[in-house]
Amino acid sequence: MFDVVAIGRVSSPLVDRADAPRQGDEGAPEAWLEFSTPYGEGLKDISAGDDLLLITWLDRAVREVLSVHPRGDRDRPPTGVFSTRSPDRPNPLGLHRVSVLAVDGLRLRVSGLEAIDGTPIVDVKPVLGEIAER
Amino acid sequence: MFDVVAIGRVSSPLVDRADAPRQGDEGAPEAWLEFSTPYGEGLKDISAGDDLLLITWLDRAVREVLSVHPRGDRDRPPTGVFSTRSPDRPNPLGLHRVSVLAVDGLRLRVSGLEAIDGTPIVDVKPVLGEIAER
Repeated sequence: MFDVVAIGRVSSPLVDRADAPRQGDEGAPEAWLEFSTPYGEGLKDISAGDDLLLITWLDRAVREVLSVHPRGDRDRPPTGVFSTRSPDRPNPLGLHRVSVLAVDGLRLRVSGLEAIDGTPIVDVKPVLGEIAER
Repeated sequence: MFDVVAIGRVSSPLVDRADAPRQGDEGAPEAWLEFSTPYGEGLKDISAGDDLLLITWLDRAVREVLSVHPRGDRDRPPTGVFSTRSPDRPNPLGLHRVSVLAVDGLRLRVSGLEAIDGTPIVDVKPVLGEIAER
């Protein structure tokens, strides 16, 4: 077992899991990523226009689930969670591709994000380009 | 703070961090993903040919690091870790895109993976296709 720390939180108009789109490109609103002061140095090279992979901890998920109806559709057969993007899974890590719209100190404004308000942020990584550009 | 559990481990010929390629598409070897028995149900719909996103816990990383020379190249200026794929970062989550080559019970054989032998596995997700195919 390992300890994951929240390095920040999502600030979003989405407050209810039931209202959240299933993925960021399915009509999710813009959001702010608000980071905690100790992590500011790690953000210093992020700027508007960057494409990022955001990893969150979906703290309202149910961790005992190993099989789900994909997209909550009971007409679809139960499917192993590792073949789905269900938030309910042993380690409820959310993976989100976002574009940075603006930077304001410890806050990043990002494009369509389906994570709800208050969701802990645990990591941010750049989207990788071609090998020659790394 | 949240508890992340290892759902399995990487079995790979790579044993030393210094020998590992920086990314899976930079000459990394095939590897086995070996899952723990309680998680088998979650794997049941994974088959050869699937493209997966594997999330690992890079347990040999240094978590206090917020700035690095990208790719360990001291000629490149120190860069905030959240703009890099450095394993050294506050939450050392590794993100790897792999293809499944074979399934053998609780083991998945996968294409080029830069994670070293024994690295804990914490999540597996499908690569998302177009919205209409989800």
